[in-house]
Amino acid sequence: MNDTVIITCALTGGMTVPAQSKAIPITVDQIVEEGVKAAEAGASVLHVHVREETTGRPVADLDLFERALSELRKHTDAVLQPTTGGGRGMTVEERASVLKFRPEMATFNAGSFNFGLFPVAARDLPFADWEREYLEGTTDYIFRNTFADMTYMAEQMRQSDTRPEIEVYDVGQIYNLEQLVKDGVLEAPFNLQFVLGVLGANAAEPDQLIHMLRTAERVLGKDSFTWSAAGVGYRGEFNLAAMSLMLGGNVRVGLEDNLRVSKREQATSNAQLVTKVADLASMFDRTPATPDEARAHLGLKGSSSVAF
Amino acid sequence: MNDTVIITCALTGGMTVPAQSKAIPITVDQIVEEGVKAAEAGASVLHVHVREETTGRPVADLDLFERALSELRKHTDAVLQPTTGGGRGMTVEERASVLKFRPEMATFNAGSFNFGLFPVAARDLPFADWEREYLEGTTDYIFRNTFADMTYMAEQMRQSDTRPEIEVYDVGQIYNLEQLVKDGVLEAPFNLQFVLGVLGANAAEPDQLIHMLRTAERVLGKDSFTWSAAGVGYRGEFNLAAMSLMLGGNVRVGLEDNLRVSKREQATSNAQLVTKVADLASMFDRTPATPDEARAHLGLKGSSSVAF
Amino acid sequence: MNDTVIITCALTGGMTVPAQSKAIPITVDQIVEEGVKAAEAGASVLHVHVREETTGRPVADLDLFERALSELRKHTDAVLQPTTGGGRGMTVEERASVLKFRPEMATFNAGSFNFGLFPVAARDLPFADWEREYLEGTTDYIFRNTFADMTYMAEQMRQSDTRPEIEVYDVGQIYNLEQLVKDGVLEAPFNLQFVLGVLGANAAEPDQLIHMLRTAERVLGKDSFTWSAAGVGYRGEFNLAAMSLMLGGNVRVGLEDNLRVSKREQATSNAQLVTKVADLASMFDRTPATPDEARAHLGLKGSSSVAF
Amino acid sequence: MNDTVIITCALTGGMTVPAQSKAIPITVDQIVEEGVKAAEAGASVLHVHVREETTGRPVADLDLFERALSELRKHTDAVLQPTTGGGRGMTVEERASVLKFRPEMATFNAGSFNFGLFPVAARDLPFADWEREYLEGTTDYIFRNTFADMTYMAEQMRQSDTRPEIEVYDVGQIYNLEQLVKDGVLEAPFNLQFVLGVLGANAAEPDQLIHMLRTAERVLGKDSFTWSAAGVGYRGEFNLAAMSLMLGGNVRVGLEDNLRVSKREQATSNAQLVTKVADLASMFDRTPATPDEARAHLGLKGSSSVAF
Repeated sequence: MNDTVIITCALTGGMTVPAQSKAIPITVDQIVEEGVKAAEAGASVLHVHVREETTGRPVADLDLFERALSELRKHTDAVLQPTTGGGRGMTVEERASVLKFRPEMATFNAGSFNFGLFPVAARDLPFADWEREYLEGTTDYIFRNTFADMTYMAEQMRQSDTRPEIEVYDVGQIYNLEQLVKDGVLEAPFNLQFVLGVLGANAAEPDQLIHMLRTAERVLGKDSFTWSAAGVGYRGEFNLAAMSLMLGGNVRVGLEDNLRVSKREQATSNAQLVTKVADLASMFDRTPATPDEARAHLGLKGSSSVAF
Repeated sequence: MNDTVIITCALTGGMTVPAQSKAIPITVDQIVEEGVKAAEAGASVLHVHVREETTGRPVADLDLFERALSELRKHTDAVLQPTTGGGRGMTVEERASVLKFRPEMATFNAGSFNFGLFPVAARDLPFADWEREYLEGTTDYIFRNTFADMTYMAEQMRQSDTRPEIEVYDVGQIYNLEQLVKDGVLEAPFNLQFVLGVLGANAAEPDQLIHMLRTAERVLGKDSFTWSAAGVGYRGEFNLAAMSLMLGGNVRVGLEDNLRVSKREQATSNAQLVTKVADLASMFDRTPATPDEARAHLGLKGSSSVAF
Repeated sequence: MNDTVIITCALTGGMTVPAQSKAIPITVDQIVEEGVKAAEAGASVLHVHVREETTGRPVADLDLFERALSELRKHTDAVLQPTTGGGRGMTVEERASVLKFRPEMATFNAGSFNFGLFPVAARDLPFADWEREYLEGTTDYIFRNTFADMTYMAEQMRQSDTRPEIEVYDVGQIYNLEQLVKDGVLEAPFNLQFVLGVLGANAAEPDQLIHMLRTAERVLGKDSFTWSAAGVGYRGEFNLAAMSLMLGGNVRVGLEDNLRVSKREQATSNAQLVTKVADLASMFDRTPATPDEARAHLGLKGSSSVAF
Repeated sequence: MNDTVIITCALTGGMTVPAQSKAIPITVDQIVEEGVKAAEAGASVLHVHVREETTGRPVADLDLFERALSELRKHTDAVLQPTTGGGRGMTVEERASVLKFRPEMATFNAGSFNFGLFPVAARDLPFADWEREYLEGTTDYIFRNTFADMTYMAEQMRQSDTRPEIEVYDVGQIYNLEQLVKDGVLEAPFNLQFVLGVLGANAAEPDQLIHMLRTAERVLGKDSFTWSAAGVGYRGEFNLAAMSLMLGGNVRVGLEDNLRVSKREQATSNAQLVTKVADLASMFDRTPATPDEARAHLGLKGSSSVAF
């Protein structure tokens, strides 16, 4: 059991729209400010998406990424981990293009599945038209990560010397990894992130996290990976955080995954969520890892080797 | 615990190519002959795909379906259950078009996922060019069943008075069903088929079947569904069959899912696989259900209400 | 999910000896003081053992019980729950004799197993001779609760109108309860306490708590019981507390089960442990139940019907 | 996955009385005859108890053991594995005395628990008085295996160069083994027998066998043991047999554990049960191990080193 815990903060993501919370950072300046404060609160990894600055629509614009990454780098030593998730209609080549910045780590999604945000559209919120369409449009959305896509992405990551954080959303994706190892696409050690609670994939329940973890140990080998958990939704986020803390894993929190800090109270910042998980960590005798401790644990190349 | 067990035979499917086994039925006549013999051996449900008669390529041709279903109906009282899985590039509307035959039951797939057949292409078999391409092409294939698709399909099934057999391939798909119930798309009681062992979804392992079953009981309600298991691959097929027999579930076998009758011996017919599972059933004190027992258990309308 | 959580504080127990911690309450006065403060900190149930006042040796002396229960009753409204666990060499009749005080609730142990405290004797602590003997003696100790004992105890509880809190230490004991129901000895609804972490029975690990809970739901019926968890040992106590909080269960803590408040720091009082779990509860949006809320949830007769 | 499976036949045991089945072997001659035939049917290990020859009462008489073991040895090459379970009221020294025969292997029971046979007494069978008393007496019976007992037994086994087959009846007993390893009493590799279905311990259900196996892998180390399963009761026996066959374990069957060969048909011999499991094994592509294959797999010294 590690005495430290790597807290990843997923700053803004693409699973929400601005009408859901004023706290969601939208502009690069806001994302950078949120990231810096999250790092001060204990996050050693910042998971970075960008949004169209005028509307808040989730996008994967390289200029925005470059500004966000380079500004963040000026103000924090935290590991900067851009998404390769992209958005609807993007090709895998477009999604991988963020690797031109040669980040220390980026997400690698381990399979395809429905990614449903549409139940949010039924809430009584003052949605802009595009927001409602964005959410409702996910009734027909598949988060696409075919074996060919994964093979391509892994190769791009090798070329940019970027370590994949493997996002695993359901049990079958653990077996996808087994196949990718057989095919020489990936090799141990792995850095797994169990992302649970997305409609379309596995749920953010204690039973499911334990089942995912034990399956991964059995299929991939007990000592072949580091792991973290990200629960989507308020209850999922902190339930999975607590379980990871007690089971020796790391934790991801942030406004990408959850907008509340308690059952009936919206979060006002990413730092607030990081602070809550750091408080929780102290109850389980674990302290937030520093960025360098995180780098050592995750096997990263260091921030001097990035291209932003 | 039921004294009877419903054996479904998946006669030909779309997961294999003719080079893999001479036993795979290809023409309508072959499919019908295999179906009749499978029913005689104990299958009370026949799961029907069709293939291009000259090449054996899996297709979803309505003329072939009509011939297969109507010929089968002449020669067997078994429940005839066409697939709505379709093939690469087909729209959900095309896939649902088989419902014009108003079958008693048809498959309903509970989510999207990579569906990888490509490892087979690496075997030393005399593949035709199209066969190799068909298999290798699945490196980039997603079996598409978005929430919108599922909503459409459920509505079509209501209109044709066809009972959905819900194919569940991974844990998250159980939560998809929970959402579809909330949205009024599906309602209990359900007929679940746990299809395990497809590359891209959950594996055909005892741990996984138990986990799927217990999750379904917890999420959907213990008494809200009948269930069956289909293991893909030789070991998966009979391991899951045995587990279903002891846990009170039903069983699917057939050349769609598996081509061997023992570890080192290819199956020569679907009936041979049905016979093996019937022999196994007798060891667990269960006898093959008759078609009418199957209809009663599954809640089907009866063969007099079909349109073929 | 309840908004409240019943916190039981196990004040002194019989699993430790005074050399292990100065905080362990020994005299009746100390036990009462600890109990009152624990209740003030949020405990709504106090689990009561007594100790020989001069030495601190765990005993089951009726005079000490009477003094402790009646003094506690004067100073707190919390539910007072004496143990019927007794000590080495005591008959079930002797153990049940505390029921003469007609408490609202008392523990009912659901099976026999080795109860090993002996590893503690190997620590470098200034043990008195009796303490070392007491601990080492458990190499040959069985916590005896035969089916005959359980039948007798249940009948005594019926006669004293005392509700059994059923202590379940291992998976098999859930099936013992199933048998006791068949035999008419117990009936639903049950109040279960999963006590995990005793050497000789199941461990205080997340996997085990979930397995115990799901087995109980499957075997006894999902809605047939309230439940709580008590983890023995520091990590077990707070790991199980957090899991119960997220899974909708109740929590037992206290110096009976654990002597530390953090990994490297001894607890100075029971109230300190209750406070830690109340803090943890607030992170999961649950507040300590009042004694009357606990009575309503557990189905207790009320403190006016006790005989002390 | 082994191609072979070690079938242990538990010939007569102490869990039944003669009124339950005429097939139970009672005299030494009967036990020997049953053992020889079971070996011919595919058993490579014979688990041996003895009974009072006039009444059939389970006993642990050394003369009877000596006759049974030496006669068996004359007629079969199977591994002869006497019980050290003893009977009610026997000390661990008395139970260990069978080790004077220096068998290749003997049972080693991994914890204490209620061992309830009493539900059988409620059946409408022509019990002799002693039989009814024997069964009903188990309402107050604990199968006693304290840590001190286990330490003594392990030492005796070392002295007789007898390999322990460790009988594990509930989850907590896996953690007992962990403690015994810490204390230097046992060391890997272990030969585990999961004995499930005894009233008082864990049940013979698929969920429980998988949970026991995965817990053992996690706690003791995945490669630290060989394993087998013995399900008590008819359904348990063959359900666990099938699961062991598919999961790579070995199997124990026999009239000690189960008296029926199908749901409604009593077994007429041990060989009949061995034959059924051998038939089942062939369906899972496993063949009965020979005695020498069993010896190699289990790490036994060989039959030339016994003292009978």
